[in-house]
This record gives sequence, C-alpha cells and structure tokens, in this order.
Amino acid sequence: MLIALDAVGGDRAPREPVAGALLATRELGLQVALVGPLEILREELARHGPVPSGIELVAAGEAIGMDEAPVQAVRQKKDASINVAMELVKQGTADAVVSAGNTGAVMTAALLKLGRVRGIERPAIGAMAPYNATGMLVLDVGANADCKPSYLEQFAQMGAVYMEQVFGVANPRIGLLNIGEEAVKGNELAVEAYTRLERSGLNFVGNVEPDRFHHGPADVIVTDGFTGNVAVKVTEGVADFLFSQLKTSIMSRLRYRLAALVLRPALLEMRSRLDYGEYGGAPLLGVNGVVIIAHGRAEAQAMMNALRVAGEAASSGMLDAFRALSAKPAPASAVQSTASTSAGTTA
Amino acid sequence: MLIALDAVGGDRAPREPVAGALLATRELGLQVALVGPLEILREELARHGPVPSGIELVAAGEAIGMDEAPVQAVRQKKDASINVAMELVKQGTADAVVSAGNTGAVMTAALLKLGRVRGIERPAIGAMAPYNATGMLVLDVGANADCKPSYLEQFAQMGAVYMEQVFGVANPRIGLLNIGEEAVKGNELAVEAYTRLERSGLNFVGNVEPDRFHHGPADVIVTDGFTGNVAVKVTEGVADFLFSQLKTSIMSRLRYRLAALVLRPALLEMRSRLDYGEYGGAPLLGVNGVVIIAHGRAEAQAMMNALRVAGEAASSGMLDAFRALSAKPAPASAVQSTASTSAGTTA
Repeated sequence: MLIALDAVGGDRAPREPVAGALLATRELGLQVALVGPLEILREELARHGPVPSGIELVAAGEAIGMDEAPVQAVRQKKDASINVAMELVKQGTADAVVSAGNTGAVMTAALLKLGRVRGIERPAIGAMAPYNATGMLVLDVGANADCKPSYLEQFAQMGAVYMEQVFGVANPRIGLLNIGEEAVKGNELAVEAYTRLERSGLNFVGNVEPDRFHHGPADVIVTDGFTGNVAVKVTEGVADFLFSQLKTSIMSRLRYRLAALVLRPALLEMRSRLDYGEYGGAPLLGVNGVVIIAHGRAEAQAMMNALRVAGEAASSGMLDAFRALSAKPAPASAVQSTASTSAGTTA
Repeated sequence: MLIALDAVGGDRAPREPVAGALLATRELGLQVALVGPLEILREELARHGPVPSGIELVAAGEAIGMDEAPVQAVRQKKDASINVAMELVKQGTADAVVSAGNTGAVMTAALLKLGRVRGIERPAIGAMAPYNATGMLVLDVGANADCKPSYLEQFAQMGAVYMEQVFGVANPRIGLLNIGEEAVKGNELAVEAYTRLERSGLNFVGNVEPDRFHHGPADVIVTDGFTGNVAVKVTEGVADFLFSQLKTSIMSRLRYRLAALVLRPALLEMRSRLDYGEYGGAPLLGVNGVVIIAHGRAEAQAMMNALRVAGEAASSGMLDAFRALSAKPAPASAVQSTASTSAGTTA
C-alpha cells in the first residue's frame, strides 16, 4: 500500500503534510510517497532527523496555488505536484492520492488523469461531519453547484458504499437534506430526488431538516453541491463566531478568565466536535481511483487521518462497488427498494 | 397605530403572544388587537389582572395548526385567527399583522387577503440575523424554494428598503450568498443574480461566503428560499448541538460545574447572540401590508419585539417604497448602478 501525498499543497505545506506522513508511517505502518520539489521535501524532512523507510520522494513541480484557476493551471502545469501524484495512481505505482491543496485543482487533475467511473454521471466531494461516533458523510459539498435528481441518487449510492466499505457501517441510513419533513417539501430538485431515493433500494430514511443535521439522523446525507457547501461552511462560520464572542466575553472580567481556565478542556472539546479534519478528510467519490482531499489548514494529525482513510479506502472494495453500481439491473433494485424503503421511513 | 396579533398562533400560544401584547402596550404604548376565540383570550388576560386600554379583543376561530397544510386550511377555515387578523389590515382597521403561527398559513392568508404589491414577482420572508449592532436581513429564508435571478434582485431591493426605512441603515450593503468570492462562482442562479445585482443601482458588495455569514459582511443578504432556510436552520442546529455537547462536558466533572456557574452569564450571552427572536421577527416582504412572522417558540419579549418592529414598519414609508420599485425607470437605475457598484465592491 503506497499513498501519494501532494506534500506541497495546502496552506500549511510542506510542514504539516510532511509531519503527517511521518506520523502515518510510524504509527500506522503506511508507505507514503511525498510528491513535490525534491529540495523542498529534503529540507523539510531534515528537520525531523532520519527518514523512516516508509517514506519515498517523488520529484514534481510546485503545487497549484489556492487562488489559481484550477482547470487552466492543471492543464498548463504538467509537472504540478497534484498532477504527478495522480499520475502515480494512474500508472498503478500508488494506491491513492491525498492532497490539502486547491480543491478545484485536485478535482480537475483527478478527472483528467483518472477519469470518472463508468456510469457515474458526476463525481462528488463528501465531507465527514463529526456528529456521532462513526461520523456522517455529507455529499456533495462543492463539486457540482447545479445538480439533477439522478446525480443525488448516485451520490447516495456512492455514499452508502463509502460508509459501508471504509467505515464499516452496515446498511447505511441515507437522508436527503431538505427544508421540510414531508416528501412534497423543498425545491424541485429535492422533491424529485426524494422519489428516486424512495425507489433506489437504499436504506432511505427521508428528509433531514437542517436543524437536525447535527444530531446524526443518518449516515449519509445527500444534497446538491451548492447547498452542501453552504451547510458545511455555515457550520464552520457559526462555530468561529460563537467562540470569538465567548472569548470577548471571557476577557471582559477577571472571574470569567479564571473560570475559563478551569473549563478550557471542556471548551476545547466542544470546539473539536465541529472539526471536520478529525475524521480524515473529504473523499472525492466517482473518479477512477481513491482521492482524499484534506482541509487546506489541516495539521499533522489531520493529515495522518486523511492518509489512514486513503489507505482504508484503497484496500476496501469501494472502487469495485462503484463500478458495479451502473452494472446493476434496474428492476431488481426497484423490487428491493420497496421493502427497505418502508423499513427505512418508519425507523 | 393598531397591530393585529394572532393571539392563538404558535407553539406557546396564547400565553406568550398575550404576555407580549401586554408588554408592548405598557412599555411601548402600542395598541394591539388580540385575535382569537374570545373565551380563550379572556381567560388568558384574566391571569394578568386589569386589561390595559391599549388592548382590544377581536373574535375569531382557532389558529391554523403548525402541522396543517397551509393552503387548504387557510381556504377552508374562513374564521381562523390569521384570516381574521389579515382581514383587519385589509379593511384598514389595523396597520399590521403579527403571528407566531404556521408560517405557510401566514403567507397564504397574506397573499389571499392582501395580495402582492404590484410589480413584485414573489414575496419573501426575511430573517434578522443577530450578528452586529443593527442586525442583518437574510432573505428569502423559505417562501420560495425555487427562485429566478429576477426574484433575487427584487429581494435585494425590498431588503434595502426594509433596512433603510425600518432600521435606519443608510445605503444598505447588499451581499449575495454564494460558495465562492468571484462573480463566476456558484450555481446558475447565483451567477445570473450577481450580474443583475451589479447593475441594480443597489450598494452591492458582491458574494458573501457562508463562513463569513456571521461576521456582518452586509446589511442584506439575498439567496433563494431553499438555501436561505438551510443557512438559518443550520445556524440554529449548530448552536443547539454545541451547547448540548458543552452541557454534557460540564456535568462530567465537579470543577467544570463550578466554573460553569461563574461563566454562566458569558455563556448565556454567547447563546443569545444566535437568537433570531431578539431582533423582532421575520418580515414577509412584498405583500400589500405589514406582516411580521414571529418564531413559533417566541416568548413574551420576542413577541413584544415583533410588535414593535411591526409598528415601526407600518409607520415607515416601506410599503410606498415597495410600490415605487416597479415604477422606477430601468435606464436611470442602470446608470446609477455603475458608480455605486464599483464603490461597493472595493469597499
């Protein structure tokens, strides 16, 4: 198992990706190919003493910047670290790619080098929302701003496979993010997606309202990439806002400052419950290879988690299961659907 | 100034609406018509001693339930409290309606009794987000799940009027909720709405990303009713989730419990910063009358705030300004736009 790591991508590269790779080799026994300009990688590794045997270096150019136009940059910079990392997977040298770099560039490079799984209309980015023990996968969170109902059905199928194969969740519960409980609620996309999900043969538990989002009502929540991105980013924003407000309050009185010192661990724990990075990054599902997108600000621990999940996804049957999705005969799955749907909605 | 209050609508009716009305008459000198079954209103008022002169009673049937199908219920229950309240405004007896009842029913009753302002394509529900001194208006938060770009432009125009006329914000900053900063980012709706807003003559400050939503980047934020509802409800959900997590942490250790006692005021203040009710309810903009929707769980103080805002909106030039919107010559506003847009985006 070799994971190709875009070692120079992200806001904290190369420091955090390299530190994460070292953790992953030492603590998890993973093999990691650090991809980037060799002099940068060597300099960064030198800060850590002897290089473990699980680390390889693969020469590449600089990363594509966070603010660069993805499609153009991926096409023009053939030796960009993300392109070289994808090429390693394409050639069969590596089993998965992890990057904390420009999300659009990761997606573009994956589509150009690896392509889509046959039958999958659109790849989706899934975010692991940290609201229960195993986590909850929300997708799409940004790959497709405009979606058709059929995309959402495929997101649900891919999400179910991912949670089952990589996180060991049996018969994952699928929810549809929607602004009302009833089947007829929501926009046209949601109403049509509801009908499709009901007939999909998946364990569809119905609509999930946004204020229930954080109560773990499902294992997979599907939505279009615009709404999903809003939901995930609002969550980050609210948490930031609350903590900055609390900090201001605390600093206003000495007795608050003292009490806050005592409460610090509990407050940090509350904070970490909203940290998406804890759960190992966002999978790009539907491309012909395992690709995990880490948060641009991911630290070493989060990078290690992303590498771990990449390894687990690569050694699972995830990609084969994706490939089998479009091969499934529709009538059989429609028959199966009636039983599991009614079980799902009454659950 | 007489405000018609749906005294039996909402999860905490008649108790909180009636208590809010009493507060509003005593503290703000407003006149309030309590609308509902007289025996219920009299019984509730009896709990408060002598009835102030600012309170009137108007006989009506029960409220439309929170779970009833709005359109059907509003049409069938002619004497439902919300229908009678709207009728008071239609007849010119009352100047505004406030209700904490079924939102769909309030909207339907308003449309049937009062109708739309001529030229306004779709009414919108605005939520006052409590993130800075004056508050920020987000619309639409649920009236229109599917929107056209032209609706969003009108939401911006109505939002600007509301913030200017009712909250005294000069030249309100208009933002577009979107998943990227650049004009080309987002779904088709957002991209087209961006172009329209740029040319609208409004003080358009560009896209607002969801994680900046809580930092007061604009006075008015426009989006479709699906996304707006998700953004507002996710905010509520995250706050609930965080506080329940914190509570569990605090209860786990004695020293946390003691520290939390000291910090309690700061924690409650943090909590209240996310309380939409503080700012006086959600206006239904674009109908021929002043209609304010209070939160279904609104307490007396929040009900009083809603009544206050209803009074301020009714005595402002808001409705006349809405009526003037469609009368505006398009070319003049297009000329004005170029100057104020470039000022806005560089601000």
